[in-house]
Amino acid sequence: MHEVRALAPATVSNVVCGFDCLGFALDEPVDETVVRQIANPEVRIIHHDDFGLPTEPDKNVVGISVLAMIRDADLDFGFEVEITKGIKPGSGIGSSAASSCGAVVAANRLLGDRYSKLELVEFVMQGEMLASGARHADNVAPCIFGGMTLVRSTEPIDIVTLAHPSIFATVIHPQIEIKTADARAVLPQSVPLIDATRQWANLGAFVAAASQGDLRLLGRSMEDVVVEPVRKGLIPKFDEVKEASLAVGALGGGISGSGPAMFMLCPDAETASKVREAMRLVYEPTGIDFKIYCSPIAGSGARVI
Amino acid sequence: MHEVRALAPATVSNVVCGFDCLGFALDEPVDETVVRQIANPEVRIIHHDDFGLPTEPDKNVVGISVLAMIRDADLDFGFEVEITKGIKPGSGIGSSAASSCGAVVAANRLLGDRYSKLELVEFVMQGEMLASGARHADNVAPCIFGGMTLVRSTEPIDIVTLAHPSIFATVIHPQIEIKTADARAVLPQSVPLIDATRQWANLGAFVAAASQGDLRLLGRSMEDVVVEPVRKGLIPKFDEVKEASLAVGALGGGISGSGPAMFMLCPDAETASKVREAMRLVYEPTGIDFKIYCSPIAGSGARVI
Repeated sequence: MHEVRALAPATVSNVVCGFDCLGFALDEPVDETVVRQIANPEVRIIHHDDFGLPTEPDKNVVGISVLAMIRDADLDFGFEVEITKGIKPGSGIGSSAASSCGAVVAANRLLGDRYSKLELVEFVMQGEMLASGARHADNVAPCIFGGMTLVRSTEPIDIVTLAHPSIFATVIHPQIEIKTADARAVLPQSVPLIDATRQWANLGAFVAAASQGDLRLLGRSMEDVVVEPVRKGLIPKFDEVKEASLAVGALGGGISGSGPAMFMLCPDAETASKVREAMRLVYEPTGIDFKIYCSPIAGSGARVI
Repeated sequence: MHEVRALAPATVSNVVCGFDCLGFALDEPVDETVVRQIANPEVRIIHHDDFGLPTEPDKNVVGISVLAMIRDADLDFGFEVEITKGIKPGSGIGSSAASSCGAVVAANRLLGDRYSKLELVEFVMQGEMLASGARHADNVAPCIFGGMTLVRSTEPIDIVTLAHPSIFATVIHPQIEIKTADARAVLPQSVPLIDATRQWANLGAFVAAASQGDLRLLGRSMEDVVVEPVRKGLIPKFDEVKEASLAVGALGGGISGSGPAMFMLCPDAETASKVREAMRLVYEPTGIDFKIYCSPIAGSGARVI
């Protein structure tokens, strides 16, 4: 076997009250990666798109992730990685993490699956470090493990797979750019204790609601008093999208990642479709291009096909 | 039926990463209350102890709680409440909440159980308002519902009963006084976002670990980077008690309520006994009087007997 093909899904991170720790995987969109063994212990990147992503392996999140694996395994050969992106970079739904996760999952298969999922997360976090400047796993964890995940700690890495009911997400991606620097600049350095307390009570309730399948509690707990208030101003029509979605039955939602994507969780596919329509009606008059995805919260993360 | 007797357990609140929201009930110690119907719509308090608690109903947490119920029910009669305290006031294990919860549970029985548990929590919160100056339910909720509870919100009241494994708690109560004002004065007004994030990731993991019965994760998530660092200085030998307890197999623990009590969660009764002994060895040389309780996390809260 000299070539392995993998799919890796888009993911929603910073899920409302779970800033920097709570995420989940979608069924679509996905990135596709094909990994082939090559003679030298290096990484060669081939892009099938015009997003202008770098191909130098040490300047590319995928390159860094796969190089980390090559070094760890002390290989005397390397990998060519061919990437077909279904997830637009800068969307807020884990585009860079998806390509890297697909690449390491495929490369791992070529190595006889010698690495655990947790080890694969570690490799991809090295790539994400380039993209965000920090050890983040909140997109990587759901992309590798699938489903809904909580990153308890990144140092050392500690990932919890959460039980959750069969629910759906509708995600709208307005095709505008939010600079990472801007999304970061608005974050508060510190939080009033009273707000922090409210946030963690909500996150505790969210996790309990997910494990108990209590959709009403899930909805009530989807409240973000820390990050959403300062970041929503970067996203046109944020409040209108949320209100229109709740009005047709969405449980709750918020900013996906650091935006501009927004997501709403829905109790079933029918509601997810209604939310899609409600979002469309809010966004069409703005003249801003947008894409909307409806998807169950996916059980499977990045996988060989 | 003109007299009803109730038991109400001690409770641990502010459970490590769950400051102001996470609590659980113990099997012992308990307060016992006997409630009798009296002719006038008023509350009469009888204490069987020398703790010097007020007997004027509007200056007593029990009195306020029961008066709130009498007013809500628009009764033309009242209640005499006889209190035998097994839980020392000011201990940090929900002494005031226990007496009030026992009283309203017993009075509610005399009214044909017309009020729900959630409504009883509301009455007792009015009493707690006197004791702490704020709408707190983190001792009241586990005392009324039993088991492990999360108060998602107090306005409106929203209580989540958490699934949890069969585990034990060892609680040491050093017989020193910590003034509420002092315990509050050391609390930070605000928290660095990075600490707040770590705290809520831990609380999310704690709730997941409890529902999944994952004791190792439960232990790892019992980390408090916000309140324990500033409050532990008020409690002699805090670090030593914790270290000695962890060394003999405790999962984790911290300050109970706002102290001075400390608690450690344990996987089984045998470990809870070892922790008792470890705590004793730390505390005996200090010359400070102390009491230690070993108890399962109790399924039942305040109840008529």
